[in-house]
Amino acid sequence: MKARILAIAVAGILLAASGCGQDGSNGGLLNLMNARGLSEADVSAALKTYTPTGGRDDYLLFASGGHSGQVMVIGVPSMRILKVIGVFTPEPWQGYGYGDQTNALLSSGDRGDTELRWADTHHPALSETKGDYDGEYLFINDKANARVAVISLKDFVTQQIVTSRLIESDHGATFVTPNTEYVVEPSQYPAPLGGGYAPIEQFNEKYRGAVIFWKFDREKGRIVEAQSWAMELPPYMQDLTDAGKLASDGWVFINSFNTERAWGGTLEGNPPMESGASQNDMDYMHIINWRSAEKVVAAGKTERIAGMRVIRLQTAIDEGLLYFVPEPKSPHGVDVTPDGKEMVVSGKLDTHATVYSWAKVKALIDAGKFVGKDPYGVPILSFEDSIRGQAEIGLGPLHTQYDNKGFAYTSVFLESKVAKWRLSDLQVIEKIPVHYNVGHLVAAEGDTVSPDGGYVVAMNKWAIDRFNNVGPLLPQNFQLIDTSGEAMQLLYDMPIPIGEPHYAQMIKADKLKSIEVYTPIGIDPLTHKVAKNAVQAGQERIERRADGVHVYMTAVRSHFTPDIVRVKEGEHVHLHLTNVEQAKDATHGFAIGSKNINVSIEPGEHADLHFIAGKPGVYPLYCTEFCSALHLEMAGYLLVEPR
Amino acid sequence: MKARILAIAVAGILLAASGCGQDGSNGGLLNLMNARGLSEADVSAALKTYTPTGGRDDYLLFASGGHSGQVMVIGVPSMRILKVIGVFTPEPWQGYGYGDQTNALLSSGDRGDTELRWADTHHPALSETKGDYDGEYLFINDKANARVAVISLKDFVTQQIVTSRLIESDHGATFVTPNTEYVVEPSQYPAPLGGGYAPIEQFNEKYRGAVIFWKFDREKGRIVEAQSWAMELPPYMQDLTDAGKLASDGWVFINSFNTERAWGGTLEGNPPMESGASQNDMDYMHIINWRSAEKVVAAGKTERIAGMRVIRLQTAIDEGLLYFVPEPKSPHGVDVTPDGKEMVVSGKLDTHATVYSWAKVKALIDAGKFVGKDPYGVPILSFEDSIRGQAEIGLGPLHTQYDNKGFAYTSVFLESKVAKWRLSDLQVIEKIPVHYNVGHLVAAEGDTVSPDGGYVVAMNKWAIDRFNNVGPLLPQNFQLIDTSGEAMQLLYDMPIPIGEPHYAQMIKADKLKSIEVYTPIGIDPLTHKVAKNAVQAGQERIERRADGVHVYMTAVRSHFTPDIVRVKEGEHVHLHLTNVEQAKDATHGFAIGSKNINVSIEPGEHADLHFIAGKPGVYPLYCTEFCSALHLEMAGYLLVEPR
Repeated sequence: MKARILAIAVAGILLAASGCGQDGSNGGLLNLMNARGLSEADVSAALKTYTPTGGRDDYLLFASGGHSGQVMVIGVPSMRILKVIGVFTPEPWQGYGYGDQTNALLSSGDRGDTELRWADTHHPALSETKGDYDGEYLFINDKANARVAVISLKDFVTQQIVTSRLIESDHGATFVTPNTEYVVEPSQYPAPLGGGYAPIEQFNEKYRGAVIFWKFDREKGRIVEAQSWAMELPPYMQDLTDAGKLASDGWVFINSFNTERAWGGTLEGNPPMESGASQNDMDYMHIINWRSAEKVVAAGKTERIAGMRVIRLQTAIDEGLLYFVPEPKSPHGVDVTPDGKEMVVSGKLDTHATVYSWAKVKALIDAGKFVGKDPYGVPILSFEDSIRGQAEIGLGPLHTQYDNKGFAYTSVFLESKVAKWRLSDLQVIEKIPVHYNVGHLVAAEGDTVSPDGGYVVAMNKWAIDRFNNVGPLLPQNFQLIDTSGEAMQLLYDMPIPIGEPHYAQMIKADKLKSIEVYTPIGIDPLTHKVAKNAVQAGQERIERRADGVHVYMTAVRSHFTPDIVRVKEGEHVHLHLTNVEQAKDATHGFAIGSKNINVSIEPGEHADLHFIAGKPGVYPLYCTEFCSALHLEMAGYLLVEPR
Repeated sequence: MKARILAIAVAGILLAASGCGQDGSNGGLLNLMNARGLSEADVSAALKTYTPTGGRDDYLLFASGGHSGQVMVIGVPSMRILKVIGVFTPEPWQGYGYGDQTNALLSSGDRGDTELRWADTHHPALSETKGDYDGEYLFINDKANARVAVISLKDFVTQQIVTSRLIESDHGATFVTPNTEYVVEPSQYPAPLGGGYAPIEQFNEKYRGAVIFWKFDREKGRIVEAQSWAMELPPYMQDLTDAGKLASDGWVFINSFNTERAWGGTLEGNPPMESGASQNDMDYMHIINWRSAEKVVAAGKTERIAGMRVIRLQTAIDEGLLYFVPEPKSPHGVDVTPDGKEMVVSGKLDTHATVYSWAKVKALIDAGKFVGKDPYGVPILSFEDSIRGQAEIGLGPLHTQYDNKGFAYTSVFLESKVAKWRLSDLQVIEKIPVHYNVGHLVAAEGDTVSPDGGYVVAMNKWAIDRFNNVGPLLPQNFQLIDTSGEAMQLLYDMPIPIGEPHYAQMIKADKLKSIEVYTPIGIDPLTHKVAKNAVQAGQERIERRADGVHVYMTAVRSHFTPDIVRVKEGEHVHLHLTNVEQAKDATHGFAIGSKNINVSIEPGEHADLHFIAGKPGVYPLYCTEFCSALHLEMAGYLLVEPR
């Protein structure tokens, strides 16, 4: 009763409308609902997502940027993009790829003789401690070029890019083992291991898959390539991956499709891969004992291919490191339950979520009880003896995540729905429509040992009619769903303006402890140490040396010292630039006209810029980040004198 | 009374909460307000901005992406980013800069021997008809490298980049004349016109500003460089610009600062430019008669510099094309009122918005009544005789826009406020705090002949504490303000995740008529015509010619034809790729592993891809845009055979 009276009071206040006009257009709950066509559910959704000025989001969503090559950081529940992190693609706002340090970083990801300045990012993986997000690092793969990047969450800056010529593409990367011992990267499209040509007609004999276990050194914040290793796999298309945890710790699970080993040939009279790869009723989940594999590697039972220690397929079989269990038709997602006791697999051309029991699987492996071998000799477990059961989900189930109440949430691609089902009895409780064609979904910490519940985000592939038309190329649509109540509630449609995100992870915001400024002055963000050429206030100078002219420059509101740089035609210029500010958000930019140079220097940050002074001329240099009322005057000139 | 009863009913419903749980955590207006810490004003703001699933935004905001080099398209009032348009920087999601057509487009913006793949975009300008937005084109400048881009709003695709070596930087670009006859680009930092070196000590004699009038051909959708021309200006720093309209049609107004002609020299014992440029009490508004200038150009009274027809400064003076009127201390914004009768100027180091009367200015010019000349001979009008008055705004007023009720809105940088004032009596009505350091602001169609009113967006430069911390480099903050009522109401904080946007224009969404698919099949978006190499279904083929192997490929859900491409080591490959779909949103991507190639082909779109087959190998090719349940199978191989 008290609540009802309060409600009346509030409603009255809202009708009167604080800070609103007399004409009725500007206030009042009912007027607003009418004017904007809002239903009661809309009002509820609005209040559940709206984050007032200065407010904080509860979760941060780290989403792949798809073929933008970047990572998006999104607040939940407001669904506002807080940052796009430059990862594989140059990003001049951050100066990423437009100065010496980040140029070298991007170049370290080149493959062969090709300069790569894009990527197809798929699966971000937050670093974990005991199977739970720890908020320290983020990893992400590049499907197109088989690369993995390491991002520090200390400052949201990409630290490292690694690639191995062992494989030509990946997909089910990156996923981490429960203490981030390894970052796992399986290949997707088979190819001769280590590069080189083989006729496609020798696909079965000479093409192979592989899974790379990149060793991560948390102290250094780096993948250590020399300590990493891989395992050869049959030429199926390895797909999504998940690491075992708790009960299943020490193991990794990888889906595969195209056990038919189709390779297309549409102009040559063959069926396209989409039909060639969809003939078999079952494909194989790969079950890999990485902890034992580690010992096999340590024992030297590997072969070096493209510089990587590789456990050959026969060794993996002989040493009991690799097993298969059938999965219904064109499986896509494999998702280990929070307790690590079960693996849930959904098939693109199947209607079920199949629940595999780790205890049953392990018992079969321990007993050496197999129903056969694949053409390469990998032992196959009995499907029926490995599963607890199947949940009848619907058409095109893909990925599953979990909450804190014993429910699982599975994306249903063809039906465009999210299905909520109970793990205990495999009963579907509810399905909620999404718009449209949901791929991955993500729940709050929903793939950890301790999911939070409350939110699910459906990552939909097609938007079609959901937003204002902005050209033939449309945004995709993230939909936020409230899962805290008995019934799911669709809260928010969020257009994705910069790529096709595949997967995301959602972490409690208070787990992240990003620094606010770089201290002491002169930090290189790629090492988090004071840079060799850091410049302190009062130490600004210009030195001429054998390798060119070195300019030691500082930036402070609102001038550079020096602001006039005199060089000779064709001279090599090494510009060493430090932002000597220590105030939060006191970022400066630095650009030179008609040069492909622009860096962003955060408070305390140092950057080096090398370029060759071209033809004689007068090139303005200036601060590209609005830093004060006299920001426009934070400028000077590069004067290139004739010789 | 009826409203009150309705309110009670609504409140009751909201308390009962549709689709909500029993635990009280998931529903009920009051519970929600308590749980999320929402005030009554927050509830009002939430309902004014929340856009339900499938709903449309009323306005689209076209915002510069700052030094990301791109343009953002944002829905108002939801403040969701609907698209980031690739303009000056490669953007692989859109395939922008990763295929032949867009690579050539980006290269057309290179300056001298430098490949430029970034920009500092500042001021977007929507095309206008009779001074009102017509929704056909968007223009935007690159301050760093003095470039201008043309974007078609038929498909939100960049069509053209132009640059002139006449100038080395710009700022107050782009602004259009009322029928988009010209796209105006004044320089910012003076330099010798046409490039080349001159000692900085000869700044006054040899450095110059200029304003380029780029001729726009609406039929062709292109700037016609041969019909464009420029005017030489003194070496002040030309700044913001606006075109006269209605009463003042035929004229252009450009602010300037640094009439002191300071050029810094901080390491050489000079004061920094920020202080050197802030000595004078007055700088000069440039008043340019572009309609008369057009005739002077036609009469051949120009000189060619860097290929551009330039009206020399003395000619401009002699022909009565250029006048100055003093503006208080370091002016920044110049904004013509909707009726074209007044120009409002604010000074960074002044506290006023100064209102110039066009009738007074014009009368002084017609009467030849000047109070002096600048050092270059440009006639100067009397400040006192040119103005109607001054509004006392506050500390650091910058930019002004207008509504449909006779009010002006001015951003106040140092106070971090938006001031609302009445044009009729120059009285400030209200100031609302923003967070923090607002630069530009934009009102709904607020710089046209017919502003809509209702919304203002403050484009704040610093965010500091407004959002979750995402590293030392923070987003900026757009704040949406409801101006429809008697009092302004802050509605929404929007983090800007990809750059430092400077300016935006807000257009009624229903003025935009973007196409949904490219028809007929095979369209090149850069010409909007069927491409020479367009491929129709059934016409797929591989041809070997003198210049290499030509692959004519189609994409349709979910396969490429051909999907196996066999080439020889080192061969030139010309891939001609058409998406033969005509369903809305049926976009495909196309990438080849370990090649810097990725295109996005919208339904009906054609793209060409040239590359050199490198070393022998097996390179997966695949669709990068999730197009169907069997999208992962939309793949094939580039087979590079050894010679």
